[in-house]
Amino acid sequence: MALDADDTLWHNEPLFTSVRGQFCALLERYEPAGIAGELLDEVEMRNLEHFGYGVKGFVLSMIETAIQMTGGRLEAADVQTIIGWGREMIASPVELLPDVADVVEDLARTFPLILLTKGDLLHQQTKLARSGLGSHFRGIEIVSEKDAGVYRGVMGRYGVEPERFVMVGNSLRSDILPVLEAGGHAVYVPYEVTWVHERVAPEQLAMLHFHRIAHLRELPELLRQFSPAG
Amino acid sequence: MALDADDTLWHNEPLFTSVRGQFCALLERYEPAGIAGELLDEVEMRNLEHFGYGVKGFVLSMIETAIQMTGGRLEAADVQTIIGWGREMIASPVELLPDVADVVEDLARTFPLILLTKGDLLHQQTKLARSGLGSHFRGIEIVSEKDAGVYRGVMGRYGVEPERFVMVGNSLRSDILPVLEAGGHAVYVPYEVTWVHERVAPEQLAMLHFHRIAHLRELPELLRQFSPAG
Repeated sequence: MALDADDTLWHNEPLFTSVRGQFCALLERYEPAGIAGELLDEVEMRNLEHFGYGVKGFVLSMIETAIQMTGGRLEAADVQTIIGWGREMIASPVELLPDVADVVEDLARTFPLILLTKGDLLHQQTKLARSGLGSHFRGIEIVSEKDAGVYRGVMGRYGVEPERFVMVGNSLRSDILPVLEAGGHAVYVPYEVTWVHERVAPEQLAMLHFHRIAHLRELPELLRQFSPAG
Repeated sequence: MALDADDTLWHNEPLFTSVRGQFCALLERYEPAGIAGELLDEVEMRNLEHFGYGVKGFVLSMIETAIQMTGGRLEAADVQTIIGWGREMIASPVELLPDVADVVEDLARTFPLILLTKGDLLHQQTKLARSGLGSHFRGIEIVSEKDAGVYRGVMGRYGVEPERFVMVGNSLRSDILPVLEAGGHAVYVPYEVTWVHERVAPEQLAMLHFHRIAHLRELPELLRQFSPAG
């Protein structure tokens, strides 16, 4: 069984949301009628293929957005402020979601657990170390993208048949759809906010069969009911 | 057997050297008696623990160095230029070292090969795809640091006893010393230039036993002679 990390085991998106807010406030000093948020979304999406997921790419996208919006009037001190936010994000403590420590410990007694997350390699490893959950995982898979091919690769590497593979996560786009495509089971645990990049249109979900729980603490009971899990 | 990637299979450091040169030239417009190169080295070393290895961290370090050197006079257009270099570095083609394609194909017939590299996850995967060498490797391990613990982890994951594990690479600091510490064999293939961070004092090498070849094409013959390789 594989578990996503960001916004499944620990809070992540609120940190980005908070820095986005500070970023928009900073740019309002240059452009009071700011559309920094929308432009940042666009620049981020365009940069994903070059810079990938994670804080460093986010910082570079903020700087590019700021330069673009201010027509080059952006002051160097503000560039340094933005980089400083990135350093703070990377250094910030990991806050587990409620009951996650107990649930993961409990699950690990019954199932071989894999942590399966995308993002920056060093930062994700650091967060896992800070989370205190590391010892419960048989494998750590930090990947640059979560598509059906990547899930098939993980299933193969751990010798788990698709019909016995369960993925648990908060992103329909990354944790649910590609797992179903690869023949596995998926358990969706929505988080309070979803990054625009991870959103999925409802029609994409029609006819698909996956489980949905409100909180990770419901997972052990769900698994007892459908019990396919490897 | 595990092979390093950057400057062992394909050219990498010259790309950084070239951008460093452009960076110093850019800063000479602000500070004619520039010490941009030395300051950049310092900022990079300080940032490694936060930003890790790879182009994105290098770009952030260049921007910070530039702001620090110019006392805030740095123009936004130059910040954009620096980010543009990063995007070009990430997009640049992979140039294999001479004979590498043949040697790796040859080795893969006899030994299960692992690619073992540090750096940015997405960028290293992209480079491997561009290299055309991907199919020769049984495993791809992109790690955030290469220390003895990481090598022990890789040996364990692939079920290779240390005395049958061989690491081949161009960095004494990352590819040789920690492998020996983990009980494995190491083959050093120096590259034409070595990043300051990867340099090792000669006294650290005294009493250590590792192999040294001038070029990867000498590896098959070396392995036939000492033949421990798993």
